[in-house]
Formats: sequence, structure tokens, C-alpha cells
Amino acid sequence: MVQLHDGERVDDLMRSHLKIIQDPGKFCFGMDAVLLSGFASAPAGARVLDLGTGTGILPILMSAKTCAGHFEALEIQPRVADMAARSVAMNHLEDRIHIVTGDIREADTFFAAASFDVVTCNPPYMKADAGLHNPDDAMMIARHEILCSFEDVAEAAQKLLRPGGHFYLVHRPFRLVELFETLAQHQLEPKRMQLVYPFADREPNMVLVDCVRGARRRLRIEKPIIVYRAPGEYSEELLTIYGY
Amino acid sequence: MVQLHDGERVDDLMRSHLKIIQDPGKFCFGMDAVLLSGFASAPAGARVLDLGTGTGILPILMSAKTCAGHFEALEIQPRVADMAARSVAMNHLEDRIHIVTGDIREADTFFAAASFDVVTCNPPYMKADAGLHNPDDAMMIARHEILCSFEDVAEAAQKLLRPGGHFYLVHRPFRLVELFETLAQHQLEPKRMQLVYPFADREPNMVLVDCVRGARRRLRIEKPIIVYRAPGEYSEELLTIYGY
Repeated sequence: MVQLHDGERVDDLMRSHLKIIQDPGKFCFGMDAVLLSGFASAPAGARVLDLGTGTGILPILMSAKTCAGHFEALEIQPRVADMAARSVAMNHLEDRIHIVTGDIREADTFFAAASFDVVTCNPPYMKADAGLHNPDDAMMIARHEILCSFEDVAEAAQKLLRPGGHFYLVHRPFRLVELFETLAQHQLEPKRMQLVYPFADREPNMVLVDCVRGARRRLRIEKPIIVYRAPGEYSEELLTIYGY
Repeated sequence: MVQLHDGERVDDLMRSHLKIIQDPGKFCFGMDAVLLSGFASAPAGARVLDLGTGTGILPILMSAKTCAGHFEALEIQPRVADMAARSVAMNHLEDRIHIVTGDIREADTFFAAASFDVVTCNPPYMKADAGLHNPDDAMMIARHEILCSFEDVAEAAQKLLRPGGHFYLVHRPFRLVELFETLAQHQLEPKRMQLVYPFADREPNMVLVDCVRGARRRLRIEKPIIVYRAPGEYSEELLTIYGY
């Protein structure tokens, strides 16, 4: 039995019989989250924190893809957090995934310092243009830095990650210089990066970054992810990540 | 008539009948320089400076690919600078390209501040491991940061480039975090970047960066350059850059 509000629907995640509640008019996960769930890893028994979890897509997918022990997932919007919590219950994952309603800027009031092995985040990509947005718009809050900046995210990750722990994020390539700068300022050293190109002859539209808290400086850029091999036709790699 | 020293040979650049003197035992240009000559551009009449020019490959190729007015090219090793100067003479480019023997760390004693529209550099990629190298080894000096660090290069570019001028460089992806940090510290803002992947399913081994002195922060990552479409067979794009 699952309780759905107006506009919500249940979607099949095509992996381990997982399902998720989404609201197409307000809030759906994107390919970004799925690619991040494939890029990130978590050792057996690890404690994982997802910052700004939205529908809960990341911990739900990572609960199937990894042997991590426990997931905490923070979401500032109460209605979205409630949707995520109902998805967790629907998948009988209450023992492994815990949804917390709260602000990333106050994350250290919910969780102990250095208490996570892995932090993940699919943050808002766009700068907030002051005054142009509706503060009640769930999609706007997820996409624009209205309620938190990238610096807020990095600060939370730095505080909550143990030394040597991994911070995995997805972002837009146009902000790469600033991302690297902010990450380094928070002792989150980018160690591995992968660019996502829609086609082999197009500019990338996503970047995946794996940082290690306190690591020495040396970056490995991995082979490109190319999403489509032909218009409308996913590449082999993407089908593997999606788990088809 | 061209004067060749022991070990030197003349190679055809397959573009505009240009030739270059190289010494296969000591000093040959690489694909890096050719890709940088395709990535960089220079407006008509521009003044261009190449830092650490080696054989002079960059200004020689760019003299054919652009309508730049004048090229200065700085090289610290007298024997290599002499080889470059003979290549310039052999191609009858003495009016457009001037080779200067000197140290990048003293570049501002050879050239006036803010006097260039474009600066190019194919710097040493590897950190100097103290004590492990022969200071007379031309190839070692070209590949390792023995006589100049990336910071020295950025400092010279910052001083000699006019505001709004472009600094084009090629480097190794594993140093990207440090490159961005050093460039930003010298007001050389990375605006455009391209990764060079040997094959579509391999890690990139070169990164091309186009910085603008004093520009605002926003990076465009371009479509990938994929060198081979099959083992031993260059991709269309690479053939175009090479001018075949």
C-alpha cells in the first residue's frame, strides 16, 4: 500500500524491483542522479550521506548498487522529504535509508562531525538570480542556488566526512573552475573526474567529480561517458549504468 | 641552403610547404604542439609570444594557420634556440618570427609588459624530481619543470599579455586542479577547454586550455578530440588539424 498525493505517480527504477514516487509537474529525478549513482561507490558497511536528496533517488539506487551499511539523506523541502520517505517505505528500505528534513547549512546540527565515509550530492546547478524566483517552487529550489550555494555544500561535506572519505558530486562543466577552487578550499581534493557528452561530437553537459578529504593533489580524468550512440539510442555504457 | 648539425634532419610539416629542423635523439615536437596550434587562434595583425618554443613548431605552424602579424618565441636552451632560428630562416619567416634565447622567469626583461595579444605555451608537464636529472639533457629540460615551473609560466603570461588577451596552453589532465588554481591566481581565467582522448573509450592524455586575462568566471568545455578511430588510424578531426 502506498499513499500518493495529487500529481504523484510511482515509477519503476528497472533495478532490483525498486520503485520511486515522483511528481512530474514538480519534481522528478534526472539522468544526473542515475549517472552519479553509477560513478559513486561505497565500501561494505559504509555510512553514506546524501545532501539535498530530493526524491531520495541517490540512496535508493545506491542501496541496490553497493553494500553500504546505512544511508542518511537530507532534504530541506518538507513535501519533497515526505515523498522520499514514502518511497523508502514502499521499497522496505526503512532500516537502511533515513530521510531527514533539514537545511544543508545546518547539516552539522543533525549529524556528528566526520561521521560519514561517503557524501553524495546532486546540487542546484544554476546561480540564484536575486528576485526572479518563487520560493515555493520545488523545481526552482532544486535547480537554483536559492537555499544553498556550492560553498554551503562543500562546507557540509568537509565537516561531516571522515578524513580519507569520498565526496561524490555531479555538476555543470561551465562551473568547473569554481568547483575545483571551492573544493580545494575545503580540503576536498578532486581525485577522479568524468565528463558526460550527449554525443561524441558535442560539448559535455555534466561533470562527475570524486573528491577525497585531505588527499594529495593529483587528478585522474576518466574515459568519456557518451550518452547516445545515435539520436534516441543510448550507448552500451549508459544502458549498463541504467541497469537495463 | 640549410646548415644541419650532427643528428639533425629536416622534416616536412605537410602544410604550406613548411619544414622544420629536428633532432630525433634530442628534441622533436609532439602531437601536443600540433593540437595546440589548431586550438589557439590569433586575430589579424596580432602580436603573439610563444614561451619555451623548442624547435619553434608553434609559431611556425601558427604563421600558416593565422594572420597574426608578428611572433616572438622564447627558448632557454641556446642550441635549441639556434635550431629554431635556422628553421625560421629556412622557411623565409624571419620577418614574422623572431627567436629569442632567454629564461621564461626573466621574460619581462626581453619584452614590454602587456605588449602581446596572444601568448602560447607547451610547458614541461612533469614535476622536477630533485637530483634525478642531467641539466644538459635537452629533452629532460623540455619535459620536466627543471628550469621553470607552471607558476613561472603563468606569471610571465600575466605580465606580458594585454588585458583581454588570450593565453593558450596544453598540459596533462592529472594536473588540472593545480593549473586552474595557478591560472586564476594570475588573473588568467580559463574560458575554454578541450580534452584529447587517444580513443573514445580511453582516459584523456592532454588538455588544451584557452584563458583570457581578467575575464569573468565561466568555462566552456568543448567536444572531445578523439585521436584515433581505430588503432593506427587517425580520426577525421585529427587529420584536419594536421592539415592533411
